[in-house]
Amino acid sequence: MANHRVLILGGGFGGLYAAQALKHAPVEVTLIDKRNFHLFQPLLYQVATGSLSPGEIAAPLRSVLSRQKNTNVLLGEIVDIDPAAKRVMLKDGAAVEYDSLIVSTGSQSAYFGHNDWRVWAPSLKSVEEATMIRHKILLAFEAAERTSHPEERRAWLTFLIVGAGATGVELAGALGEIARHTLKHDFRSINPADARILVLDSGKRVLGTYPEDLSRKAERSLLKLGARVRTGVMVTCVDADGVIVKTGSGEERIRSHTVIWAAGVAVSDFGRQLVKRTGAETDKSGRIKVRPDLTIADYPEIFVVGDLAYALSGDGKPLPGVAQVAMQGGGYAAKAIVQRIEGKRDIKPFHYFDKGDLAVIGRAAAVANVFGVHLSGFIAWLVWLFIHLMYIVEFQSRVLVFIEWGFLFVTFNRGARLITGTAAERSVDPT
Amino acid sequence: MANHRVLILGGGFGGLYAAQALKHAPVEVTLIDKRNFHLFQPLLYQVATGSLSPGEIAAPLRSVLSRQKNTNVLLGEIVDIDPAAKRVMLKDGAAVEYDSLIVSTGSQSAYFGHNDWRVWAPSLKSVEEATMIRHKILLAFEAAERTSHPEERRAWLTFLIVGAGATGVELAGALGEIARHTLKHDFRSINPADARILVLDSGKRVLGTYPEDLSRKAERSLLKLGARVRTGVMVTCVDADGVIVKTGSGEERIRSHTVIWAAGVAVSDFGRQLVKRTGAETDKSGRIKVRPDLTIADYPEIFVVGDLAYALSGDGKPLPGVAQVAMQGGGYAAKAIVQRIEGKRDIKPFHYFDKGDLAVIGRAAAVANVFGVHLSGFIAWLVWLFIHLMYIVEFQSRVLVFIEWGFLFVTFNRGARLITGTAAERSVDPT
Repeated sequence: MANHRVLILGGGFGGLYAAQALKHAPVEVTLIDKRNFHLFQPLLYQVATGSLSPGEIAAPLRSVLSRQKNTNVLLGEIVDIDPAAKRVMLKDGAAVEYDSLIVSTGSQSAYFGHNDWRVWAPSLKSVEEATMIRHKILLAFEAAERTSHPEERRAWLTFLIVGAGATGVELAGALGEIARHTLKHDFRSINPADARILVLDSGKRVLGTYPEDLSRKAERSLLKLGARVRTGVMVTCVDADGVIVKTGSGEERIRSHTVIWAAGVAVSDFGRQLVKRTGAETDKSGRIKVRPDLTIADYPEIFVVGDLAYALSGDGKPLPGVAQVAMQGGGYAAKAIVQRIEGKRDIKPFHYFDKGDLAVIGRAAAVANVFGVHLSGFIAWLVWLFIHLMYIVEFQSRVLVFIEWGFLFVTFNRGARLITGTAAERSVDPT
Repeated sequence: MANHRVLILGGGFGGLYAAQALKHAPVEVTLIDKRNFHLFQPLLYQVATGSLSPGEIAAPLRSVLSRQKNTNVLLGEIVDIDPAAKRVMLKDGAAVEYDSLIVSTGSQSAYFGHNDWRVWAPSLKSVEEATMIRHKILLAFEAAERTSHPEERRAWLTFLIVGAGATGVELAGALGEIARHTLKHDFRSINPADARILVLDSGKRVLGTYPEDLSRKAERSLLKLGARVRTGVMVTCVDADGVIVKTGSGEERIRSHTVIWAAGVAVSDFGRQLVKRTGAETDKSGRIKVRPDLTIADYPEIFVVGDLAYALSGDGKPLPGVAQVAMQGGGYAAKAIVQRIEGKRDIKPFHYFDKGDLAVIGRAAAVANVFGVHLSGFIAWLVWLFIHLMYIVEFQSRVLVFIEWGFLFVTFNRGARLITGTAAERSVDPT
């Protein structure tokens, strides 16, 4: 008898954890991703701010799964699916069949329908974007140093972050540290600490999904690093000159050459294709409404996990798009597939075990809500450090990141401050 | 009295060491580079083969020189010089004046007059090229895994390195290790150890500038790692399908999709401009013939150091284009400038202190010629390790690289095996 074929789409948290959970299962696993590595996305903002190199938060998928003999890794881009024939199609024309499918293709950034903003305001979704943001930040300081025009200098030293969720807050904190500490002695004409860092959000407070006391503490920590939060403002335009925001009292232009997008997300392109082929229901941001066992209606062999899934927690609230949800979802799907093969009938629905929320704001400061306990400051930072290190996939990366952070903590220096690629080849034009 | 203005062009070994040697001098130093970082070029092949991340072998120039108050770092590309007016021109239109000039703009790779080969055979001169080579190598294994066509598989698993100098030998050794050890368990259809690694050179032996016994030992070490050397062959064509070589007995095509260029070098673009403006004499590869004090004839205030200079050693032989020569040259120029300011008359000519040569061939194997003593194997590797670590500029990088190598040594794993950028976005097409 041929083995049951499990196909996993996407090597993020959901896909990788599903694959690992199937290590000893009597199945043939194929994992397809268009990248050859798993990315530890929660630390991507540290690549963008020059603390870590991309290699330190990524692990080659083949390497992670190399000793798992029932698993095959395929580098390729999935473009379509035929759910009746149980088959997905790759961009290069190849087709892969499955008996069970786990879709974990994640999300991408969305610009409220203004995709033209992307060119001015990169988001933090890929290694390439993180590197580009790093270049933008460093080049802005260089340009400020070069220009003698006070207004231009101010525009170069203004950093705007759109979105005050965890990513926006973490970015703002790291930027504040760069300006206040890391670059302290590096320039001759400017004082990097003059940098103006603004976090813009249309909501009422930062970290809107956290308890209110932690939001307040996060905002205070940001202020200490020179990063100001402006809530209740709606970004209505992003261009070469900065942004236009709508406030309670009218419109306002904020001049800046460095805008970073940390706001909306949308589902992956393949996610949309899957909806088209299966007729699955979605929420308004395009996430697929799954059944309590994370499968799509009418297709019990298709599991959707992670950011692409719209799943409900025990108390009826939609689960957030965080790593924990994806990991637990991937593990659940793997287990459910094995139980079905074993002939088990009453498979329990997916239950998300919420361990809490964590956001770090610069050096030795964080806010955390762990099992309902609210922590802040150094303690929260230690918790954050511990949890994140534990989850970094490869042993080597874990130790290196730890050491690099140790240095960073002591020295405020950031080792990965390179400007590479085409942006570096054009010389800085501060006009 | 205004301070004497020293302008340094290029932040490589020559320029950086010149700047550091001027730390306590009564001069105003400006260092201009088009990149914001100093690159530890001798380890670039480790970035190309996935052992190190770019951030680990680079140090931001501003950070290295931040505490040096008499020194200003400028990010910009120099395009021209007016030696009569003592002024250089930047791409963005700015001009910078000097009293003394140290030119250390280095070399670039040359393709024997066939610049169209560059697209098929990247060289190892910049971080971008190193990253691109890494992508090519990793994607070749991916493509070999995907294709079912034996001849195509063989072409994907054939890696050609043109040039058997230190760079070529080190690359071949690292590639051999990847194929034999690092990727050992990662694939299901291919055996990475089947990879064919060929080093092509028109000379008689590998490491032509080393003593003959070390050449033989290097070749033997390479063979152990599955890398074969073919000397006496001239590459006459490089294209999408591999290379054509001319041997003693005729022409031969070697099919490969991964060709790496480690052969000729030419001077930088600014170097050519400098020759045009000063009428300086050059050797046949364009290097500027300098006087015994490293200045250009008729321009005693212009020093040329590093790869751009054609300087002679005590016994009349031209000095090689290695880091040591550039560092010592930069230090000499700085000292000479200070002595002139102090009114000293009989400034000694530049004397190169040759500490020897070193090339590493994979794990715990190297060849070295240290003060005339020939070393090989593990001992030579330890010497190499020690010397290289000592020269890595930043403390942080030094420790990290050391630890990363420790892991690599124990585990054969390579942490920086990422395929990023556009090459990663196109899916692998093994046809």
